[in-house]
This record gives sequence, C-alpha cells and structure tokens, in this order.
Amino acid sequence: MSACHSTTRAVVLLSGGLDSAVTLAIAQRDGCECVALSFDYGQRHRAELQAASRLAKQFNLIRHVVLPLDLRTIGGSALTADIDVPKDRIDDPNEIPITYVPARNLVFLSIASGLAETCGAEAIYLGVNAIDYSGYPDCRPDFIGAFARCAALATKAGVEGGSLEIRTPLIAMTKADIVRTGAELGVDFALTHSCYDPSSDGGACGHCDSCVLRRRGFEEANVADPTRYAAS
Amino acid sequence: MSACHSTTRAVVLLSGGLDSAVTLAIAQRDGCECVALSFDYGQRHRAELQAASRLAKQFNLIRHVVLPLDLRTIGGSALTADIDVPKDRIDDPNEIPITYVPARNLVFLSIASGLAETCGAEAIYLGVNAIDYSGYPDCRPDFIGAFARCAALATKAGVEGGSLEIRTPLIAMTKADIVRTGAELGVDFALTHSCYDPSSDGGACGHCDSCVLRRRGFEEANVADPTRYAAS
Repeated sequence: MSACHSTTRAVVLLSGGLDSAVTLAIAQRDGCECVALSFDYGQRHRAELQAASRLAKQFNLIRHVVLPLDLRTIGGSALTADIDVPKDRIDDPNEIPITYVPARNLVFLSIASGLAETCGAEAIYLGVNAIDYSGYPDCRPDFIGAFARCAALATKAGVEGGSLEIRTPLIAMTKADIVRTGAELGVDFALTHSCYDPSSDGGACGHCDSCVLRRRGFEEANVADPTRYAAS
Repeated sequence: MSACHSTTRAVVLLSGGLDSAVTLAIAQRDGCECVALSFDYGQRHRAELQAASRLAKQFNLIRHVVLPLDLRTIGGSALTADIDVPKDRIDDPNEIPITYVPARNLVFLSIASGLAETCGAEAIYLGVNAIDYSGYPDCRPDFIGAFARCAALATKAGVEGGSLEIRTPLIAMTKADIVRTGAELGVDFALTHSCYDPSSDGGACGHCDSCVLRRRGFEEANVADPTRYAAS
C-alpha cells in the first residue's frame, strides 16, 4: 500500500481522446497531483491507448496505471465486438448508439474509486460531456450524481468521514468550448486520438460519431485541427 | 450480441464461497435462469476460484463467465497485496479490516450490470450479508440501494424503461441462517471455499475472519461442516 496522501491528489480517467486530455489539463490547472488511469478493454481502436501513453508522458503525472480489463467477455458494443462502427449517423438524442459499451463509465468510475482509495486521492476527474455527446446513458449528470453518492458509501473515505468528489469539468461544455479550453491550457491535440474506427496506420476515418463531433468542435472553435483524416 | 432475453434471467456473482453458493441456489429456487460471474482478481486464495468452477458445474447454468481483473494494480488489501491476513481478530464493527479490497463490490456489481445488459438479465444476485459480515463498507444495505439507483441510470435498461434489480437475499440472515437455507436447498458445502489464507493443498486455516464466521455458522445451525481445517 503506498503512502501517498495529499490534499490535492486526483485520479484522472485518461482514454487518450480529446476530452480526457483536456480534463487532465484542467485537473493540473486546479492544482491536483494526478494519477492517470487508462483501460485496455479490448477496444478495436488501439490507437486510443497509444495516445493515452503519449499524453501520460507529456503531462507530469505521479503514475499512469493501465489496467487490462477484457470487456469483450461481456460484449454488446461495436467498440469491443465484431459489429460495424456506424458512419455519418444522423443525431437522435433519444437513440443509444451501438458504440455504447454497456455500463462502461460505471465500471471505469468504480475502479477509479478503488484506486483513489489506495493512493489517497480525494477527487476523480472524468471527461464526460452532456452537450456534444454520443447519447450514452452513463454520460449524463444524473448518473454522475448517483455514482458519487454510491461511491461515498462503498469506500473507506465515505465511511470514515473522508470525501471522494467526482469532478466532470466538461459536462456543460460544447465540443468547441472543450477545444478552446484545451488550446488555452496548451494541450497538444496532435497527441490525442478520437476516431472509433481508425485505419491500420492510426489515421482517423472522419465519419464515425467521434470524428464528426471532433471535426465540428475544432471548426466552431476556430482552432486548427491537427488530425489526419482519411480522404473521402 | 446474444439474443438471450427472458423474464427470469439473472446474473449471479459467484465467488466460490459459502454465501455465493447459497445465493445461487436461492436464485434458482426463485425460478431464474442464471449466468454466473466470477472474477480472477489476483486473490491469494486461488482455491476460491476453483470452488467457483466446481459449483458452476454442479448448478445448471446458462453460462459461467470468469473475468480476469487484476486488482493488484490497485493494491491496498491483504487479499491481493503482500500483507499478512489477520488471524483470530477480535470483532470491532467500527473497524474496516485489512482484508477489505477497495471498492470491490462496487466494481463487481458494475461489471455485472454490463453483463446483465448484454445478456438480457433483469436481476443481479449478490451474496452480501450485513449481520455476520467482516465490516466491509460495500456490504451494507445503504450501499446496495445507492448502487441500484446508479445502475438504473447507467444502463440502457434504466433509460429505456426496463429494470435491473439488485437482489441480496442473504442481507438480513445470520451465518447460521445461511447454512440452514443452503442445507434446505441441497447445496453441497464441500464444494465451497471460504478461507482467506488456505494451505497449499487448499485446506482452511480455521482462524481468519472468514473461517471463524463459517465455523460459527455451521455450529449454530447444527449442520455438519465438511470443511477440512488445519490442526492448531
């Protein structure tokens, strides 16, 4: 067990995407010492994990934990199972897309809570967003609030009068706001990866939900997008 | 994605211990078709996982999922880290023991919620117990209720008007009640494993929290205990 208690320690969930990179930059701006947590969950887009490692090296972290967690055993998503990633999907806020991994944020936050407890962190940062998001149920503010209450009851911190705060600084931002904030904080967007269905050399497809949201965000923020999109 | 919807499908968390075996028997008595979920989380007592496999074979299950999940990366418990398992500990309901794995039930229930979603289960059975228990924060009824609210918000079932019930049939039972119930339902206790610190041949130590609770349960229930305890 590490003896790493501090008043400003935080666990930051780092997928390697744009949102998690900006979230990490915000956690550091907030004065937190950061432990980043990434999951190797059998995602088809391995480029994302490589981006997480690149980002972890650039930021000055206490530790970067990469936890193998084979969610393919559970299945049910185009991101982990052999189901085609949809392209140029028309937005329908009431439809949950097939790229949704069942209970993914619930699982990731749960493990982050355990890690927060062992390394003495008082906060978890998660880059979920309820504006320009993909319609996943576990990205909504209601879920985050319910999770915070649940985690407080599940951990020593909650029982012994400590605290574990779930911070979602991007939750009310548009994708353009996120890009602007990242630019202000000096995030190197070229290190991040968003595409759900990249080519074998890591190039972005430009047409999956994640590419569509990212492109639009950079355009609206009037910030140059360093992403290399496949010609189409 | 499997098309396995049914009105009485359940995911049962199966550790291989006495409590989870009785919980599985209760789920079947309740008329559920069961998918068992076990975790290979780097526990020192590997005999527990072997017991889960033995039990899974005896019960007529749809599927037994064993998910590797290396909680040693998180550390912090005598069950996963290199910390001595305490023996003949004096009960203190306000003390959280060192065998507590941070947020373990939170993590296990979260993954069970994802599995429930992909296999169309409407219930999760968990053998937690708030009477003869070890003082872990995530075994308490308050936590279970908070988790149920959280999982409903995190999953498609909750969003689309379905339901996911967290059933904890042992929560108000004494260990003696659990033994009696298991005996009534024909559970083969010899297949179960409770000891936190077994010998290399799988024999129970007789002195860890789990052995002490188990022995007392069988004695109070006046049921023969098939466990082979080390002489001491």
